[in-house]
Amino acid sequence: MSERGGLFAGIFARAAGIGDTDWLQAMLDTEAALARALERAGLAEPGAGAMVTSAARAGRFDPAELGRQASLTGNPVPALVRALTAMLSPAAAAAVHQGATSQDIIDTAMMLLARRAAGAIAASLSRAAAAAAELAAAHQGTAMLGRTLLQQAVPVTFGLVAAGWLTGLDEARARLNTIRRDRLAVQFGGAAGTLASLGQDGPRVAALLATELGLADPGLPWHTNRLRVLELAAALAGACAATGKIARDVTLLAQTEIAELREGAAAGGQGTDGAGRRGGSSAMPHKRNPVAAIAILGCTRQTPGLLATLAAAAEQEQQRAAGAWQAEWQPLAHLLELTGSAAAWCADLLAGLEVDPARMRTNLAAAGGLPLAEHVTAVLAPRLGRLPAHDLVATAAARAASTGRPFRDILLEAGCGLTPGEVDAALDPTAYLGASGEFIAHALAAHREAEADADAEAGPPRSQPRHGGQPHPRA
Amino acid sequence: MSERGGLFAGIFARAAGIGDTDWLQAMLDTEAALARALERAGLAEPGAGAMVTSAARAGRFDPAELGRQASLTGNPVPALVRALTAMLSPAAAAAVHQGATSQDIIDTAMMLLARRAAGAIAASLSRAAAAAAELAAAHQGTAMLGRTLLQQAVPVTFGLVAAGWLTGLDEARARLNTIRRDRLAVQFGGAAGTLASLGQDGPRVAALLATELGLADPGLPWHTNRLRVLELAAALAGACAATGKIARDVTLLAQTEIAELREGAAAGGQGTDGAGRRGGSSAMPHKRNPVAAIAILGCTRQTPGLLATLAAAAEQEQQRAAGAWQAEWQPLAHLLELTGSAAAWCADLLAGLEVDPARMRTNLAAAGGLPLAEHVTAVLAPRLGRLPAHDLVATAAARAASTGRPFRDILLEAGCGLTPGEVDAALDPTAYLGASGEFIAHALAAHREAEADADAEAGPPRSQPRHGGQPHPRA
Amino acid sequence: MSERGGLFAGIFARAAGIGDTDWLQAMLDTEAALARALERAGLAEPGAGAMVTSAARAGRFDPAELGRQASLTGNPVPALVRALTAMLSPAAAAAVHQGATSQDIIDTAMMLLARRAAGAIAASLSRAAAAAAELAAAHQGTAMLGRTLLQQAVPVTFGLVAAGWLTGLDEARARLNTIRRDRLAVQFGGAAGTLASLGQDGPRVAALLATELGLADPGLPWHTNRLRVLELAAALAGACAATGKIARDVTLLAQTEIAELREGAAAGGQGTDGAGRRGGSSAMPHKRNPVAAIAILGCTRQTPGLLATLAAAAEQEQQRAAGAWQAEWQPLAHLLELTGSAAAWCADLLAGLEVDPARMRTNLAAAGGLPLAEHVTAVLAPRLGRLPAHDLVATAAARAASTGRPFRDILLEAGCGLTPGEVDAALDPTAYLGASGEFIAHALAAHREAEADADAEAGPPRSQPRHGGQPHPRA
Amino acid sequence: MSERGGLFAGIFARAAGIGDTDWLQAMLDTEAALARALERAGLAEPGAGAMVTSAARAGRFDPAELGRQASLTGNPVPALVRALTAMLSPAAAAAVHQGATSQDIIDTAMMLLARRAAGAIAASLSRAAAAAAELAAAHQGTAMLGRTLLQQAVPVTFGLVAAGWLTGLDEARARLNTIRRDRLAVQFGGAAGTLASLGQDGPRVAALLATELGLADPGLPWHTNRLRVLELAAALAGACAATGKIARDVTLLAQTEIAELREGAAAGGQGTDGAGRRGGSSAMPHKRNPVAAIAILGCTRQTPGLLATLAAAAEQEQQRAAGAWQAEWQPLAHLLELTGSAAAWCADLLAGLEVDPARMRTNLAAAGGLPLAEHVTAVLAPRLGRLPAHDLVATAAARAASTGRPFRDILLEAGCGLTPGEVDAALDPTAYLGASGEFIAHALAAHREAEADADAEAGPPRSQPRHGGQPHPRA
Repeated sequence: MSERGGLFAGIFARAAGIGDTDWLQAMLDTEAALARALERAGLAEPGAGAMVTSAARAGRFDPAELGRQASLTGNPVPALVRALTAMLSPAAAAAVHQGATSQDIIDTAMMLLARRAAGAIAASLSRAAAAAAELAAAHQGTAMLGRTLLQQAVPVTFGLVAAGWLTGLDEARARLNTIRRDRLAVQFGGAAGTLASLGQDGPRVAALLATELGLADPGLPWHTNRLRVLELAAALAGACAATGKIARDVTLLAQTEIAELREGAAAGGQGTDGAGRRGGSSAMPHKRNPVAAIAILGCTRQTPGLLATLAAAAEQEQQRAAGAWQAEWQPLAHLLELTGSAAAWCADLLAGLEVDPARMRTNLAAAGGLPLAEHVTAVLAPRLGRLPAHDLVATAAARAASTGRPFRDILLEAGCGLTPGEVDAALDPTAYLGASGEFIAHALAAHREAEADADAEAGPPRSQPRHGGQPHPRA
Repeated sequence: MSERGGLFAGIFARAAGIGDTDWLQAMLDTEAALARALERAGLAEPGAGAMVTSAARAGRFDPAELGRQASLTGNPVPALVRALTAMLSPAAAAAVHQGATSQDIIDTAMMLLARRAAGAIAASLSRAAAAAAELAAAHQGTAMLGRTLLQQAVPVTFGLVAAGWLTGLDEARARLNTIRRDRLAVQFGGAAGTLASLGQDGPRVAALLATELGLADPGLPWHTNRLRVLELAAALAGACAATGKIARDVTLLAQTEIAELREGAAAGGQGTDGAGRRGGSSAMPHKRNPVAAIAILGCTRQTPGLLATLAAAAEQEQQRAAGAWQAEWQPLAHLLELTGSAAAWCADLLAGLEVDPARMRTNLAAAGGLPLAEHVTAVLAPRLGRLPAHDLVATAAARAASTGRPFRDILLEAGCGLTPGEVDAALDPTAYLGASGEFIAHALAAHREAEADADAEAGPPRSQPRHGGQPHPRA
Repeated sequence: MSERGGLFAGIFARAAGIGDTDWLQAMLDTEAALARALERAGLAEPGAGAMVTSAARAGRFDPAELGRQASLTGNPVPALVRALTAMLSPAAAAAVHQGATSQDIIDTAMMLLARRAAGAIAASLSRAAAAAAELAAAHQGTAMLGRTLLQQAVPVTFGLVAAGWLTGLDEARARLNTIRRDRLAVQFGGAAGTLASLGQDGPRVAALLATELGLADPGLPWHTNRLRVLELAAALAGACAATGKIARDVTLLAQTEIAELREGAAAGGQGTDGAGRRGGSSAMPHKRNPVAAIAILGCTRQTPGLLATLAAAAEQEQQRAAGAWQAEWQPLAHLLELTGSAAAWCADLLAGLEVDPARMRTNLAAAGGLPLAEHVTAVLAPRLGRLPAHDLVATAAARAASTGRPFRDILLEAGCGLTPGEVDAALDPTAYLGASGEFIAHALAAHREAEADADAEAGPPRSQPRHGGQPHPRA
Repeated sequence: MSERGGLFAGIFARAAGIGDTDWLQAMLDTEAALARALERAGLAEPGAGAMVTSAARAGRFDPAELGRQASLTGNPVPALVRALTAMLSPAAAAAVHQGATSQDIIDTAMMLLARRAAGAIAASLSRAAAAAAELAAAHQGTAMLGRTLLQQAVPVTFGLVAAGWLTGLDEARARLNTIRRDRLAVQFGGAAGTLASLGQDGPRVAALLATELGLADPGLPWHTNRLRVLELAAALAGACAATGKIARDVTLLAQTEIAELREGAAAGGQGTDGAGRRGGSSAMPHKRNPVAAIAILGCTRQTPGLLATLAAAAEQEQQRAAGAWQAEWQPLAHLLELTGSAAAWCADLLAGLEVDPARMRTNLAAAGGLPLAEHVTAVLAPRLGRLPAHDLVATAAARAASTGRPFRDILLEAGCGLTPGEVDAALDPTAYLGASGEFIAHALAAHREAEADADAEAGPPRSQPRHGGQPHPRA
């Protein structure tokens, strides 16, 4: 995890770092909300909640000292609770940590960190998707080479490429929003998940705690059921998959030899190398590196390993895991940070992306019609049969490639019966774009729906209905 | 991937292996459905679909020969198409693979394999959840030691433990069912995702193909947008997390020294070691190993790495990835197989689990009241203040542990002001179970809802509404 | 794990699959060697070893039946022992599995599988390295564009590129050979690592078993010390890293727009698509895909996850792990198989690689001197100072890029004081290759040493000297 | 990466954190050493090296500002070079970064960080091994239950358990020391690995740079050959595997119900929970958690994912990777930090470990002879035949387990022909320890050799002999 504003923060924590102060404040927010919940439940003195809340400010605590004490008990909460308690009157102190165990505080703090980070990620994805949608709409007719297995294939449009990016971004965002709404929940179970020290009041306090924090009430503690953490991590990995795919495409299409895309200077947020050049290299004055795309990949390539760590850590023993639980803290925070950074970079990258339709046309033209070989085959198939047509065209294409002579000429010489006009029509890339336009339209319509859904969902968290007990009135 | 019935299939592919025959049939099913879709779209001769379907039986093809040819093109589809075509009349042959590229066939086949496997997994999870629900209901009052960080903590009930298992199983199943319903989709894009060789008919054929196969119509190709694969993989990892947690608990609670749980002989499906002993060891005649739990862990411990592979592979270049796509085939099939095995083992394990409430009581009693130290503190806190109460009890507990004398006696001698009756009440585990009952009730109610939801969802796949083009009538 | 000759074996198991038969024979080889060792130790009747060896042929056993029974005990060994015993006279039967536990057989079998596979991998790496060395030597003077961050940088030579590949291959092979020689060891510990059932004879039998199998004698059992497995896995991942880097470079340099490299038809082992075209596409007749490079990446991209699985599985409990051990079997076999496939593909790829120096020159020329901007700066720096020189050149380079005018002309107009001859000299790529030649020479010399070392090491395995007990005479 | 002294540093960075200051100083050390090397090579003015060295102190730079600028170029080096240059006279400034590219500085800095951390890790592993050796020697005769698959198996000694731990620690240390000596090397290649801007002086400067830093001279740049990084990472994962196995054993053997081991208070470094209790719980006054073992697992469980990230990142394109290289920085630093923490914790844990031989005896006795069932079988086998003996004993063991009656009595009643004295002898655990003593002796002897080797290797780094060019005199 990066400290805010650290040496690598500009790359790996572009959105926001998750540092000691963030963790500390999230734990303190949990303790404060618990005190207020206890007060509302009649289990703490009036005013205790406000007094704890007022004391619970990260700046008043020393992370290094808490860190030292954490090695005595295996986590920083006991020392934090003692330090917080020491700042308070006995009446307020009695409301601190009542009913809770360290895991309750850390897990709930993780959820608060996740909510904040996931909100920022969703916003970045939304910005990125808006930019992708614009590109898709603007370039519906911009023909370019499609490339499969890193070889020129058949024509596509850049609008279709952008529509594919858009769909990935929208899908990633939708899943992340579902997680934010349904799966970020308070953890509150006490020593072993029974809340026994609160007698019969446990579930009521848990529900009030959820209300105070704006998190879901899970219905029962999830101390060793880690599906929430795993689902969150997978949603973050999904956002990284969507942005990483875009970044890889940009690095490939921005290669000097291809040059169909280029990162914009201003919107991409890349600045200068001190001498007025953006994306510049200190050694090589002519370079203009795709810094945003590289930064995205520098983030997203770290996430599969972190996801694996969290998936493995989900096997947690009995009522609290010895090792697996502790192994979640750093990877989850790092995953939130990296995903946030990748999403923020991606939004900037797409907003400022420079598309070069002329270069796309040039590259298509330079391919000499070979990417239309499939089309020629299709035109010939009804006359010659499919396999003979395929073989004739393949032979002609191979000859064109090996001799450097125009594919068109070789086709005309091949005695396949096509007229020059028919060959030219078959070799026109804009006549062989298939359903590109319809696919773009589908992606744009789905995007508009996703936007509408996201607006509609900007409500409070959806708690699971509490089952099985007497109703718990919520304040 | 295991062959069906292989040397390790009993452990790692208990539900079903995914072998060459399965892959082959899934690819053939896709080709056959495409032929039928083309016929319905008026792009193939009447009867062609039925003829292709009739020929498309895995048993008629030689996987080894196809495998040899696969090394020429990088995947087995071209050879399969040639072999299939060779079996057909020209009219039927013309309907084979029309509009498609190899990736369309492999990706759609993966989805078919996933659908079959995910259905079996969901069924196993449902059986496991039913057994967990029974255990939760039956053992609402069965007190046992809670254990945190592998140390005795405070009392819980076995019903609560089972309720935690149940919740994990239900959550995993719900996510998997959502994936099955919404995210398993046809991939059909042709050479580079435009379906250009079908002219304007592409989207209509795609929709008909989806209908034929009972998969979702994605609206646009997802050849290099791999979020579907990643979400599926994450849902499978979730099922492994839920079952792995249960298995780890069972191995721990079945330790000879604890012996609160034991795998049942019959339902667990473990047989004998050849001499009539189940879970036996050839070397050690006295042993009874928790074979089902170990097998589950042997499966689930493999899944985080596979998930990481698929997450990393989601960064796919341009219109078809060179390497990342190919790297998905084996891990996804293996993940389906292992998750299926873990879920099947888990259902058997829970259905046959032998619970020993007497041993749980004995272990609780042997703890000499120490697990109730928190309760004693709570009773003393109003009289002494919370920290002094905590310190007094901690000192007494340490004395009891070091001397071996009863905690009760030491408390009575400690001058804390409690009467023998009060001490006995404080040390009664059944009086310190907090919200266990209510939490169990919540889990059971949520389970009943999950069952009802699952029943309701047993409908056809939900396609994304097709946007942006003229409406496509579906047959 | 693939069956030999299966549907995907051509891609993922090009060298050799590790299937049920291989596992079975490796286990039987271990049992047979144990019987011979017992006989040599005087613990079995004369002739027993030969009789067991004669019976221990995989073809005589039914993997499916053993697999079914494996689910009763958690591994296939007990059933195998019973089946083997049933084939033998009582005297020979008494020599079967004496002193051993299932883990001894499976772990030692894994080592045998690893030895065979690692030998093949080392041979493939050696073939690949020989081809890389030839390329490095042949292309010492072949200038080409260096590319950093997927952008044109400064000139390099293709010889230097090949020297870098060579170094990776040699390093990977050296590590793998060390592992083969020092770390592939017999596991023999009996029920819990004491060999108690053999009385005082255990270590002597272990040493004889090692001799029989040609594996190292570890000195003490390693049943729950899995560093050998982890080191083996890491060495395999190293081979994948070396080959994967080469494959990625080939896919990039073979892009249609760059076309400096191309996979050879014959040596690459790629055949035709059925119509006489190698690396062809069924849909796109003009394509020639880099099949070998893609197959390598399809293998190597799967290995980081498998490595993670084995690293996580190294945490094994007490005297035999419940889950972590079992979770090793499939990933280790798969890792051996995939690495073997990647190495075999790589040897073929490099042996047949077609290098196009003319195209490299053309691409360099097309860059219009910009890749020499650093050189121009170096020439100017003594006259203008380093930063002013850098800024002047950067401005000129940017102007050349934006206007499309020759960098040379702009430099001459820039008033930097260079004569046309000086500019031409500065822009000559062959004059700016630095230490390329020396680096190539270093790599070639190191390669010759590596070859000599590998020849010298082709001796018997190096056992750890046995310490601490009476000397054990070995036969 | 943790900042030094942060909130979680006590757990995850017990040895030392790797924070911004460490990175910054390592980069500055590299720049300073380069200036000195250039001066020694006659390429910088006399005194320039000393002046740069004097300026290159991390405290003089602002990480946050460098971080902000890093987002412009994709790494913090260009801004660092400008800031460093600005502090210097022109003559000294000319010696800064000459010939280098950003990757040279970051990669070499990583190696410096690795050397420091690996040295500390090796020292911790050495301390841990010394403690394990003491335990192995002291407890050669301390019989205890062996446990396989978490079930009681046959007797072992605690000395043998400790000898297994020792072997793992020694193996991990040996590998790490080899890496430190042979594989931590300077990276110095300039813009694209040719060192062209240094003309013919490149290799000589590289060699001098290696001498200045005490790192190996690799012979040729390794900018996109990442086997060094992968091998280092694997060696760190090996150290985590060795320590993680120990920690898992300690958590299991410290379970309240088993209680054969216990973390010591003082040596373990665990302090108090603020009220004088070490390893205490704020909620449960009776608890004494195995804090050190849990912290180790909290570290080691994070490492497989980081290893996978680095293995995947080893596939680096062309002359500098776009994404894969950047994705190494954080995981490698984190891996160094976590391994250092695990090793430091492990040394403290083993140094203070409290072993309870009496409890081991008690647990053995409580097993009622069942763990000797294998021994009884062995005694009976010559009389009854092996399978009949196995079956008789298994039946007796099952009866003992189900009835709770002594195994001894049931054996005597079983008519197996053993006398009471023979049964007692067969059930004596100390008579069934096999080669435990010899195995311990082997491990201790190997440990003494490892210590001697480590002492002998405390020399300077071993560079690869430089091949292929004129000899380079080193100062």
